[in-house]
Amino acid sequence: MDADWPLGSRVGVVGGGQLGRMMGEAATPLGVELVVLDPTPHAPASPVAREQIVAEFDDSDAVERLARGSDVLTYEIELADPDVLEALEERTGTPVHPAPETLRRIEDKFVQKRTLDEAGIPVSPCRAVETAEDVREACDDLGYPAMLKARRGGYDGRGTMPVRNEDEIAGAIEAMGGDLMIESFVPFVRELSVIGVKGDGEREAYVAGENEHEAEILRETIVPARTGDEVLERARSVADDVLDLMVGRGVFGIELFELDDGAVLVNEIAPRPHNSGHWTIEGAVTSQFEQHIRAVVGGPLGATGLRTPIVTANILGDVESPAPAAPNGISELLAARDARLHWYGKREVRRLRKMGHIAVYDPGVVDRDELLARARNYKRTITFT
Amino acid sequence: MDADWPLGSRVGVVGGGQLGRMMGEAATPLGVELVVLDPTPHAPASPVAREQIVAEFDDSDAVERLARGSDVLTYEIELADPDVLEALEERTGTPVHPAPETLRRIEDKFVQKRTLDEAGIPVSPCRAVETAEDVREACDDLGYPAMLKARRGGYDGRGTMPVRNEDEIAGAIEAMGGDLMIESFVPFVRELSVIGVKGDGEREAYVAGENEHEAEILRETIVPARTGDEVLERARSVADDVLDLMVGRGVFGIELFELDDGAVLVNEIAPRPHNSGHWTIEGAVTSQFEQHIRAVVGGPLGATGLRTPIVTANILGDVESPAPAAPNGISELLAARDARLHWYGKREVRRLRKMGHIAVYDPGVVDRDELLARARNYKRTITFT
Repeated sequence: MDADWPLGSRVGVVGGGQLGRMMGEAATPLGVELVVLDPTPHAPASPVAREQIVAEFDDSDAVERLARGSDVLTYEIELADPDVLEALEERTGTPVHPAPETLRRIEDKFVQKRTLDEAGIPVSPCRAVETAEDVREACDDLGYPAMLKARRGGYDGRGTMPVRNEDEIAGAIEAMGGDLMIESFVPFVRELSVIGVKGDGEREAYVAGENEHEAEILRETIVPARTGDEVLERARSVADDVLDLMVGRGVFGIELFELDDGAVLVNEIAPRPHNSGHWTIEGAVTSQFEQHIRAVVGGPLGATGLRTPIVTANILGDVESPAPAAPNGISELLAARDARLHWYGKREVRRLRKMGHIAVYDPGVVDRDELLARARNYKRTITFT
Repeated sequence: MDADWPLGSRVGVVGGGQLGRMMGEAATPLGVELVVLDPTPHAPASPVAREQIVAEFDDSDAVERLARGSDVLTYEIELADPDVLEALEERTGTPVHPAPETLRRIEDKFVQKRTLDEAGIPVSPCRAVETAEDVREACDDLGYPAMLKARRGGYDGRGTMPVRNEDEIAGAIEAMGGDLMIESFVPFVRELSVIGVKGDGEREAYVAGENEHEAEILRETIVPARTGDEVLERARSVADDVLDLMVGRGVFGIELFELDDGAVLVNEIAPRPHNSGHWTIEGAVTSQFEQHIRAVVGGPLGATGLRTPIVTANILGDVESPAPAAPNGISELLAARDARLHWYGKREVRRLRKMGHIAVYDPGVVDRDELLARARNYKRTITFT
């Protein structure tokens, strides 16, 4: 083995979806290989992984096998139990990055917000709530409208519900169940995100992108965000503060709200490469996936410099019910001079499922409205019906 | 299956070396998977291939198994027998790209030169020779010095020998064996290469790179070549003519000599992605590896536009005798802001074996001498001893 770089080392990844797939594409140039654990046979990451262990994420025997067969363990989903991971780390000697402690600070969104707030990082006011009465009390303080959120497990808009007035409280509580938080509605002018990375004693952050959501699912990311330089700087600085709170190494997706006055609030943190950072594959010197691999194996971080203004657009399932994935329009897209396809290899399409993404850039074109318009056009060429 | 793009299709690759590895890294974003055949277990391409068949290249049962398990067959080495491939194509129904006919025109370097010459493509004069007497006669015509070359199988300088005068003929013939050709020595000022690609009814060529060889092994490629625009244009135009002679789809590496007066001669053609085209990964919109996948599956070609001036440098084994690969200096290289590593995952280092390559570019830096100097510096940081 090499003294200074673990060539041939194996990164075990809990989860074998598109994030694992793009990690695999980025790992081999560094001399690193992936082993992934995922319950779906032929998971998206499997063709670029040395091996896939087919097992449920909470199958502790399988996760232990993954850890024992790997030099370092990481995850592309946040469902893991920090206590289980910590015990596993101790038992197998395989380090886990980011550290289980980071998951503990992140997985419960109320704990996440409180941790940020206590560190002096700007967030919107929120409260933990269980009952309608709790919500009513909180909203007396926070005001309406407010957002009711599941503290755990929600993503892509699942687990979020607006509460516009007192009359909506009972219904919202009933729909969402317990273990909730309520948050002031933030009158943001823009949603931003910064991809940050912590390495061994160093950290880096990419320029902020701007996210367009629809029905709370990310549709497009525009890079750099169409805002002022001072806001971009502030976003990066807040991201740096967030990284200070994270334990262990790896990439983090930090979602932010930009307010009318140029202030930024942290909305949510993901302890892994993030959908809003896919632009880094073509748009930055080092992709977020390569950074994650560099970081978790303990190597030096790569340069985060911007190569070109760029827009990414998610390709989402447009079907009513699950069906084998057989898209139309891929050839037309591939023939475009300014569009790059990233297909995730999912065999089944479901409504609003992320099936792939498109990156659009064009040497010489800096007008991001133009790039966004093209990306939306290209996205429309892909249909599954 | 999709009507217009073969998502989930499998490309079978004869050979699982670094070219196959970089094909695998490029295939999954297109929704394509690789199966490779290579005699070395854990061949470089294996971690990014769905499967590796461990077998010799001339194991016809194994190659047939590869063909039957693939939607299209291609190769990253040129040792295959065109007749065998043609029969296989017929028997299995799996198309082979580039077509076996192309191999027939290329694999014998004398036939290759004659084919080019007959098509009016500029090449240096040459003759097929067997005996010392043949060489003497040829050199009476061609003059000294001349290059004696093996017609088949030579690469990286193996199978080439200069003949400076009549006295050297006998020794050269003895050293090289039979099945030879002799070629006028070309007093070139620069070695160029153009990566070209043939698709389904379309073709593309990248800007010419400039190759630095030492002991006939490629050391660095500088892009664009440090020559005039009219030479770059001529190189591309000659490459277009060469592509016309190739049958079937795929990427071709076309090596050229630039003469004092700006003329270009074709030196040699490889029917596959080429070492001198590795710069396309970072330096072009579409890499040569992605182009090859697009081409062989019958999809549209990607844009070949240059993204940045760039230099690649091969990392070669510096050991005297074979040893497990344990390089020093990788971390130092990875910490550089302007260098990108591509490791090939070979477990054993041998003298002058290609172990990886480095790509050097820096946004804003257009001085190729500067990039070349940096690439050479970085290369020196990597040692195996």
